[in-house]
Amino acid sequence: MALCSMRKARGCWRFIRALHTGPEAVPAPQKDAVKRVFSGIQPTGIPHLGNYLGAIESWVRLQDKHSSVLYSIVDLHSITAAQDPAVLRQSILDMTAALLACGINPEKSILFQQSQVSEHTQLSWILTCMVRLPRLQHLHQWKAKTAKQKHDGTVGLLTYPVLQAADVLLYKSTHVPVGEDQVQHMELVQDLARGFNRKYGEFFPVPKSILSVCVLAFFTEASMKKVKSLRDPSAKMSKSDPDKLATVGLTDSPEQIVQKFRKAVTDFTSEVTYDPASRGGVSNMVAIHAAVTGLPVEEVVRRSAGIDTARYKLLVADAVIEKLAPIRSEIEKLKMDKGHLQKVLQAGSVKAKELAYPVCQEVKELVGFR
Amino acid sequence: MALCSMRKARGCWRFIRALHTGPEAVPAPQKDAVKRVFSGIQPTGIPHLGNYLGAIESWVRLQDKHSSVLYSIVDLHSITAAQDPAVLRQSILDMTAALLACGINPEKSILFQQSQVSEHTQLSWILTCMVRLPRLQHLHQWKAKTAKQKHDGTVGLLTYPVLQAADVLLYKSTHVPVGEDQVQHMELVQDLARGFNRKYGEFFPVPKSILSVCVLAFFTEASMKKVKSLRDPSAKMSKSDPDKLATVGLTDSPEQIVQKFRKAVTDFTSEVTYDPASRGGVSNMVAIHAAVTGLPVEEVVRRSAGIDTARYKLLVADAVIEKLAPIRSEIEKLKMDKGHLQKVLQAGSVKAKELAYPVCQEVKELVGFR
Repeated sequence: MALCSMRKARGCWRFIRALHTGPEAVPAPQKDAVKRVFSGIQPTGIPHLGNYLGAIESWVRLQDKHSSVLYSIVDLHSITAAQDPAVLRQSILDMTAALLACGINPEKSILFQQSQVSEHTQLSWILTCMVRLPRLQHLHQWKAKTAKQKHDGTVGLLTYPVLQAADVLLYKSTHVPVGEDQVQHMELVQDLARGFNRKYGEFFPVPKSILSVCVLAFFTEASMKKVKSLRDPSAKMSKSDPDKLATVGLTDSPEQIVQKFRKAVTDFTSEVTYDPASRGGVSNMVAIHAAVTGLPVEEVVRRSAGIDTARYKLLVADAVIEKLAPIRSEIEKLKMDKGHLQKVLQAGSVKAKELAYPVCQEVKELVGFR
Repeated sequence: MALCSMRKARGCWRFIRALHTGPEAVPAPQKDAVKRVFSGIQPTGIPHLGNYLGAIESWVRLQDKHSSVLYSIVDLHSITAAQDPAVLRQSILDMTAALLACGINPEKSILFQQSQVSEHTQLSWILTCMVRLPRLQHLHQWKAKTAKQKHDGTVGLLTYPVLQAADVLLYKSTHVPVGEDQVQHMELVQDLARGFNRKYGEFFPVPKSILSVCVLAFFTEASMKKVKSLRDPSAKMSKSDPDKLATVGLTDSPEQIVQKFRKAVTDFTSEVTYDPASRGGVSNMVAIHAAVTGLPVEEVVRRSAGIDTARYKLLVADAVIEKLAPIRSEIEKLKMDKGHLQKVLQAGSVKAKELAYPVCQEVKELVGFR
């Protein structure tokens, strides 16, 4: 299955989605009716192609499918890593513009900024008093992150999975689109919900992860992996990639896109085939091509017969340019009107708070604060 | 100097105050002008004599001395230990009644319930992202508590000193009455204030601890220690003491007080002297006697010449009964009117929020959330 990370592994709610048009989010059986979907995304500014194909497109579909859907720009999570305040401020607005441009519709889903709803940290504190230290210390992401940073990390980096749990539970969410690397964190969310219910009586639904399933048999497991770096097909496409040619931003110009695809790493075989295991670079081209055109991988490969990889890369670039053109122009338009973006977030936060406040009040009653 | 713990060592802001009338809180020199005093107390229900003489009496004096004083019933801290919700709910009201009965005047100081001001946890999260794990793990109280509990404690128990820092900084407090066992925590508050200022520009005053000083020369160091258990003069008076005769509650009946003092542990010397090192029990009687009558220790001892300790204990009991009588009756009266107590807390929380909200908004701007 495909995973799309909006920003490295840590701190970001991601939506699992196949890189192709066919697979789509399928809720659990009827007994687990989807009553409320919650997901969050870190304010990393303008998303890249991998974010779009791996997550945002699916968010758009989810809002059409379910009656109560919340998407949060989780700025509180973003400060678990160092941030420049001016950059962060702009990134929140840029992410808002991008989500709107990609089709997130504030009439269909509640799009809001986490820090504007004070109940998140209130519930987080209460949950923090229900979890033991080793539980957090044993989470893979904490271990990986602190090992990588060669220091012990901030306490925020340790405890943010509890804030994630609060994000989800605050809305009594039943379903959470979540990436593979967040499975442990979802287990924590579920355990905290169960622990709270055990102590204070049945209150929180135990939320389920939404996993995408492959609905078309010819999508292989391999074909459903995330969008790869254009410069290193063994790595996923990432905003923080130091090689600026590796990542396609949603607002890249056609010239930039052509340049990046032209320089995309493939191999010395000229034929276009789909074989991610042995031909990562070309297969990444095919996967992206299939995703942006909505065609099955097999069809894409069939149509590319006789085209060499050098020409094929330009063909994929064109398809990407075509797919992104309306999004790019909408982002640029929306970015001009900062006031509008702020209003959208404020209106979303008001709606989110309307849901969060009564839940938080009830929690406080249960705990004994009122 | 005297330390009074409202509840064990952990999680409670305490005010240092000599056990006698003479010593009083003296602010630092002019350059550290007291602009705002903040302190907090856990909702442990009806306080005991040690709480009253060691802390609450001084809180009352501070509110007369300084123009901006906040006292918070820190219910968020209380859940770092297991709580029964119904008991906690009642304890918040009981502590409110007791503070009012002891003389905390909501017209002079802002008396409020921490969980009603959502900015505390918001600022706490931001500060949590500025502190490293080892810093919290090396705090004495975490080490002592987890060693004692023979398990690793909840994450709330680890991180509550950061919430304490938020409690203080949220009001740009300049001075914090604090107990000896909270010195490390105050250093953390100060470091977090400095760290924030370094990163985002001068914003928070670096708060100072208020320490009481001995203004009457004959108060020895020993005489200024905390009120002791009536059953074990080597231990401090504590609400959680399993021996119910050890602790005098502010609402104990005269009969209960007489019984407790009658059974107070002293020694086999009948004369009344003040020598805490070798005669802990009798010296505790003398110290309590001096504190409740407002007389110097020497005067108390002088007046007790010729009285044996058995009789003296009853004499002290009478003095305690006299001191507590109006407080007890006021507590009982206030406890009858739950609605009034709730209104007092709500009004206080509104005032606290008026101060906290703009600070929190400014912090969010500095961090880049707005």
